[in-house]
Amino acid sequence: MKQVFPTIPDIAYEGPDSRNPMAFHYYDPERKIGGKPMKDHFRFSMAYWHSMNGGGVDPFGTVTAIRPWDHITDPMELAKVKMQGIFELTTKLQIPFFCFHDRDIAPDGPTLRDANRNLDEIIAHTKDLMKDYPTRLLWGTARLFFHPRYMNGAATSPDPAVYAYAAGQVKKAIEVTKELGGANYVFWGGREGYETLLNTDMQRELDNLGFFLNMAVDYKKKIGFDGQFLIEPKPMEPTKHQYDADSGAIWGFLQEYGLDKDFKLNIETNHATLAGHTIQHELMYARIKGILGSVDANQGDTLLGWDTDQFPTDLYVTTSMMYEILQNGGLHSGGLNFDAKLRRPSTTVEDLAQAHIVGMDSFARGLMAAQAILDDGELPGFVEERYRGYRSDIGRKIADKQTSFADLEEWAIDRQIDRTDSGRQEYLESLVNRFL
Amino acid sequence: MKQVFPTIPDIAYEGPDSRNPMAFHYYDPERKIGGKPMKDHFRFSMAYWHSMNGGGVDPFGTVTAIRPWDHITDPMELAKVKMQGIFELTTKLQIPFFCFHDRDIAPDGPTLRDANRNLDEIIAHTKDLMKDYPTRLLWGTARLFFHPRYMNGAATSPDPAVYAYAAGQVKKAIEVTKELGGANYVFWGGREGYETLLNTDMQRELDNLGFFLNMAVDYKKKIGFDGQFLIEPKPMEPTKHQYDADSGAIWGFLQEYGLDKDFKLNIETNHATLAGHTIQHELMYARIKGILGSVDANQGDTLLGWDTDQFPTDLYVTTSMMYEILQNGGLHSGGLNFDAKLRRPSTTVEDLAQAHIVGMDSFARGLMAAQAILDDGELPGFVEERYRGYRSDIGRKIADKQTSFADLEEWAIDRQIDRTDSGRQEYLESLVNRFL
Amino acid sequence: MKQVFPTIPDIAYEGPDSRNPMAFHYYDPERKIGGKPMKDHFRFSMAYWHSMNGGGVDPFGTVTAIRPWDHITDPMELAKVKMQGIFELTTKLQIPFFCFHDRDIAPDGPTLRDANRNLDEIIAHTKDLMKDYPTRLLWGTARLFFHPRYMNGAATSPDPAVYAYAAGQVKKAIEVTKELGGANYVFWGGREGYETLLNTDMQRELDNLGFFLNMAVDYKKKIGFDGQFLIEPKPMEPTKHQYDADSGAIWGFLQEYGLDKDFKLNIETNHATLAGHTIQHELMYARIKGILGSVDANQGDTLLGWDTDQFPTDLYVTTSMMYEILQNGGLHSGGLNFDAKLRRPSTTVEDLAQAHIVGMDSFARGLMAAQAILDDGELPGFVEERYRGYRSDIGRKIADKQTSFADLEEWAIDRQIDRTDSGRQEYLESLVNRFL
Amino acid sequence: MKQVFPTIPDIAYEGPDSRNPMAFHYYDPERKIGGKPMKDHFRFSMAYWHSMNGGGVDPFGTVTAIRPWDHITDPMELAKVKMQGIFELTTKLQIPFFCFHDRDIAPDGPTLRDANRNLDEIIAHTKDLMKDYPTRLLWGTARLFFHPRYMNGAATSPDPAVYAYAAGQVKKAIEVTKELGGANYVFWGGREGYETLLNTDMQRELDNLGFFLNMAVDYKKKIGFDGQFLIEPKPMEPTKHQYDADSGAIWGFLQEYGLDKDFKLNIETNHATLAGHTIQHELMYARIKGILGSVDANQGDTLLGWDTDQFPTDLYVTTSMMYEILQNGGLHSGGLNFDAKLRRPSTTVEDLAQAHIVGMDSFARGLMAAQAILDDGELPGFVEERYRGYRSDIGRKIADKQTSFADLEEWAIDRQIDRTDSGRQEYLESLVNRFL
Repeated sequence: MKQVFPTIPDIAYEGPDSRNPMAFHYYDPERKIGGKPMKDHFRFSMAYWHSMNGGGVDPFGTVTAIRPWDHITDPMELAKVKMQGIFELTTKLQIPFFCFHDRDIAPDGPTLRDANRNLDEIIAHTKDLMKDYPTRLLWGTARLFFHPRYMNGAATSPDPAVYAYAAGQVKKAIEVTKELGGANYVFWGGREGYETLLNTDMQRELDNLGFFLNMAVDYKKKIGFDGQFLIEPKPMEPTKHQYDADSGAIWGFLQEYGLDKDFKLNIETNHATLAGHTIQHELMYARIKGILGSVDANQGDTLLGWDTDQFPTDLYVTTSMMYEILQNGGLHSGGLNFDAKLRRPSTTVEDLAQAHIVGMDSFARGLMAAQAILDDGELPGFVEERYRGYRSDIGRKIADKQTSFADLEEWAIDRQIDRTDSGRQEYLESLVNRFL
Repeated sequence: MKQVFPTIPDIAYEGPDSRNPMAFHYYDPERKIGGKPMKDHFRFSMAYWHSMNGGGVDPFGTVTAIRPWDHITDPMELAKVKMQGIFELTTKLQIPFFCFHDRDIAPDGPTLRDANRNLDEIIAHTKDLMKDYPTRLLWGTARLFFHPRYMNGAATSPDPAVYAYAAGQVKKAIEVTKELGGANYVFWGGREGYETLLNTDMQRELDNLGFFLNMAVDYKKKIGFDGQFLIEPKPMEPTKHQYDADSGAIWGFLQEYGLDKDFKLNIETNHATLAGHTIQHELMYARIKGILGSVDANQGDTLLGWDTDQFPTDLYVTTSMMYEILQNGGLHSGGLNFDAKLRRPSTTVEDLAQAHIVGMDSFARGLMAAQAILDDGELPGFVEERYRGYRSDIGRKIADKQTSFADLEEWAIDRQIDRTDSGRQEYLESLVNRFL
Repeated sequence: MKQVFPTIPDIAYEGPDSRNPMAFHYYDPERKIGGKPMKDHFRFSMAYWHSMNGGGVDPFGTVTAIRPWDHITDPMELAKVKMQGIFELTTKLQIPFFCFHDRDIAPDGPTLRDANRNLDEIIAHTKDLMKDYPTRLLWGTARLFFHPRYMNGAATSPDPAVYAYAAGQVKKAIEVTKELGGANYVFWGGREGYETLLNTDMQRELDNLGFFLNMAVDYKKKIGFDGQFLIEPKPMEPTKHQYDADSGAIWGFLQEYGLDKDFKLNIETNHATLAGHTIQHELMYARIKGILGSVDANQGDTLLGWDTDQFPTDLYVTTSMMYEILQNGGLHSGGLNFDAKLRRPSTTVEDLAQAHIVGMDSFARGLMAAQAILDDGELPGFVEERYRGYRSDIGRKIADKQTSFADLEEWAIDRQIDRTDSGRQEYLESLVNRFL
Repeated sequence: MKQVFPTIPDIAYEGPDSRNPMAFHYYDPERKIGGKPMKDHFRFSMAYWHSMNGGGVDPFGTVTAIRPWDHITDPMELAKVKMQGIFELTTKLQIPFFCFHDRDIAPDGPTLRDANRNLDEIIAHTKDLMKDYPTRLLWGTARLFFHPRYMNGAATSPDPAVYAYAAGQVKKAIEVTKELGGANYVFWGGREGYETLLNTDMQRELDNLGFFLNMAVDYKKKIGFDGQFLIEPKPMEPTKHQYDADSGAIWGFLQEYGLDKDFKLNIETNHATLAGHTIQHELMYARIKGILGSVDANQGDTLLGWDTDQFPTDLYVTTSMMYEILQNGGLHSGGLNFDAKLRRPSTTVEDLAQAHIVGMDSFARGLMAAQAILDDGELPGFVEERYRGYRSDIGRKIADKQTSFADLEEWAIDRQIDRTDSGRQEYLESLVNRFL
């Protein structure tokens, strides 16, 4: 089989002193950290949409990327070459998984039946590729935001025909995800929101969305798909407001519609910051609610107000992420999917490989730092000690929910209760720096 | 009884053509809008903390305001004069309610017992004032953020002694709110959050907060306080992150801790925008969840990143707010509390009166516009019509939750489903302008 | 000649009580405001790129708009139909001007010579259209950001071949602007900035940009083009940072490179807010520096971090803009160009017409309010009075620059100088509301 | 002399493996980096206002800090103890400089003469301390924003009496800065801006500000003060808008008012981000204009919209800063002043010392990384190479300004000029990580 990326070599670990840009300097897949090989901590994944379809387009400019398939015009042939491309590139980069939207990988059609036919042909091709390459499917999803029919939402569209089409499209996407052995299935409500409240019946839209997801759970059970369902938060962009704004908003929604046992979250770094939160906040919140499922790994520019989806290179970000993931006991069926795109002026396939390398190296350093912080124990020990009061006396009663306002008033009313211990934020920040 | 604000006259409605800055130009309390007197739509309230205690201080400068009590040095005398001041000023301005934090109105003390003693004396004085003035209490609350003991939170403090003190303080604040006939009691978690995740056990903090509010409900029932409990969202400031970030976050929290029947929200305009939402979004969200309780009326500057708490003058803001409130059937036990402060260079008591006047006039215009939009019917009719598909056929089945992915796929698979109707946002915005 | 928009009627003034969405309710072109017909205050213009080329595309979705030329596939034929379209639509809407980028109106080509040939053909066609329609050219510009060659800037490209191409392209764009009788020529440096400082020589880039604009001035003089040169500020998007960030940044640049006599600004509402400024700030700043040239009229959503380019409907925005423009003695050679695009779900040509109508009506109301504020005199009089101290005594010496630190110290050293007069912001805001 | 901070030891370098929180782990003052001792690269300074006067106050809470002078009530005695405190603490921390505002260090008075008398007494005390301690003055400044008289600005006040007072106050502040051998004098226009444009005459205010600074230059020359004048940019907070918004705005202002030879900039990290810029952008811009004077070292939280003034710990920030400073040939008369405050819950003097330690260690690592990047040469070499085209042929003509639009068009018109080289941002980010 002819290579799609003949100029990209197999990428191997060469250590921090190597100057080879086509090698890992920190990511050493089999090296054990905390008793587990690095690769099992991360379960890295490549995003088909950015890495195969992205071309550097932005609202003010056309494609800049140079790709080996630029000469191919037949849509099905193009789709097959790109699919081979992602299998080949992930394999060369030792990335064990990929992710896709249904319409990324196969051409759309005038009707759902037409689109499904194209999709089936590509899925068959993909299954063949799985025999030749080790790459597996982290998750699939349906692209419910690109086509004009979805301009006002899919499961929240004011038009039931669109809702019905979306249901059919998601049904098929779940089926093919199952067929490819996908470990998860993701719902990103990219237009499940509104452009203006002036024309929006929010109550109906939320109810319709709740019912849609309940039907998805029913269908999943019916066909015996045992992958994890994930919802991906994002507060805005493309629409003015998306209902799945952040972890907190989704947590309220899941409980209200009886979905909290069936869904976890797929959390993205740049979506967290668009919602005004750090990625660590979103991961920690999901972790303590038991709904941390998977991660879309990238980074944003907090001085810009849109989703830049940059490759993750900031070691503070990767360290804080791995710190939460380690405390979550890993990502289980989830993984770290590089939902990241090359900057518009990074035009070559070498950039594409090197961007993944720097992302993987940055997570490797983040993992090593996070594990070292846990092993060292000073930082987690500080937190443990800070709440020590809740282990005895009145604190214990509070923790055990064995007290009342009247009891607590009596305990407190004549005591002089002033400052508590210093929070020592500056020192704790130096502790983190120690491990970078 | 000597007047506190002798230079402020009684403020009356003089109509839009009057040039008198000490008169209402739109707010005409008894005028009926939608069959109800204006005053009953709004249930306006003055905030003790800003209007009596605020002096124009900011992080870079000291007091600028000139107040009639500037010469008084005895704390209890000062407290009594100011309390008379708010009764007098609200009465002159035809504002029927006021709101306070416990420590706004009476001096603190070394112990809770000392502070309670001061508070009791002021409450007795307040009850006397209620005999002479018509002003009533919209809500009381406890100031759980100002004192150094609360620097790491109150119900989320790492120190159980602080938690116990806070419980005792809230118990007392609920008692005095009941004693004064308060219609509601508010919880604003001004430091219930974190400065850094590095020293924070979020799970314990949220559990402690949930238990705290459950104890409050127990106590409320025990003493027979029938006012409404309200939580006030704010995402940040003073701390890096507050757990009660926005309506969505609180909705998730309330359900998880079994509090969703006992609490509604007190929503503030500037807090909404700090969370990245319009005030209409927050009001609508709370309305459809059945938890729209009361409103802190002000406006922020969306180009600035902190809580400016400006007096509300933007007619788009007041119109959108009254549009939601009308659809909520009014605010019930809640009201519109001017949680707004004079700009630092607005130094006089005349500014204080005129700022409330422009606020009240702006809400009067907002109410008239919102009622006119509803009466006119074109805008709400557009929304009704936009979702018409859910009233019959496949749409009706969706609305009634009587379908499945398989049914919907079958319905959709061979249909060509493209664009839906235009959303007509620009035209709808012109409809709103028509009523300004 | 067959109509391009047969369903769009001629739009006429029908007054505020008309319910006809295809009529002006406030914009009455010949009505005199402040002694000048409304139409001469505004010099409205339609933007070719949004109104003819825009289709509702965003980074997450494809074209939604339905246009009469959707069936045309030949690029030159399409270009000609659209050009007729903008002449027809502006005429029906009584919009006297249009604006364009060179590559909006004619297909690009492999070389500059090829592109110029296409452009010449369309320009000839445009000149013919000018015989049949009253529409004239407010300004032309060159699209130096869309093609991949410009991915790292045009006049700030690291590659001199790109710089040279850009120079040639701008030369031609100035020529055709002159040929069509354009009143101005605009420079928007959409990629004149950087994506990352890591690969940027800012000094060289700024020097190259300065020289580029100086060459443009030389060429303008050489060919006798007497239109006004304009620079359009925008701080970011598409790039991380653009050098022409805001009025202040450009003012520094113009002085440094000796361009301050040859350039004015083309100020856009949404670009102002992206830079953290109100549009009134940017207009006032440019006005007092003598460089307020023209306006790109739209509005942004200050809760979103990207350029939404919405049609202007906010009456506070239009009033504050017209207040500055009136004080500037009008826009002179400039105008109000609707650099605004339909929301993605506003798909019809009726939306396109109605969006311009609401924009024009909103500016009409803004103009009437601004003129009324000036005629009323209370607001400008307040400002005048506030600085009265600079008309006599020590204030006069300061204003005349006839004093020194030593003199001023002597004057002040024993005086007790405390508060100044109240700024009365809340009252002043009520004054503005009076005129809405 | 009794120690003010007896619990704080002398801080020495112990290396990265030391676990002693009261030691430097990276900052090794005499160690040479790039041929110059570390200490000379930084010229660290402590800010009197934060470190001696700051108490953890924020708009929602009172003092939390515990300080050795909490029992002192006499203002002059307190002022003297604190001044000794900063000399002692800087000496223990090996910080060679301090900075102050006039009213930080000595009590104000009813008249300028009274205030000057207090100031003189403290200055005499300070000169005595300078005999016993090595600490020197990096810069002085006048606090023109705290007192109510400055609520509408100082040099931009609408009241000439305030302007005169400010002139006298600055005159004295320059005198005492000279008397103490200060290396620079800073102007921070904390209220030189506006709260609302409705009451503002921007033209007069800018003219008055320009004249004020010209008088300052005159006075400086008159008394022979040879320190550097510095302006500190900040776009907002405390006011809605400050004229000295960012480097670009000041560059325009300085040129217009003939001040560009007499002023440099004092650039603050958190002010840069409030203006939407990275600190590297602001430093680079000032560097290439020749006006990089000094630095206020701290860091902000880009997810919060106000000035948090956190101690600098982010190694990306410190590395990028030192990279610019090294390319500036150092800070010359300027230095790195820790304009940083403890988080409100960091209450102890140990926190105060440790916060400076982590700041100094973080800059030491930043310096080492920046020097290593320069020594390594790959990153700066990439930039050099990227613009290689401007060293020959048509590029050389552009660089030498020896061409024209006509020449460039001729050169370009038949060439096919497409993509330029890849910008390789992702790879360049990995290069930076290599040195962290």
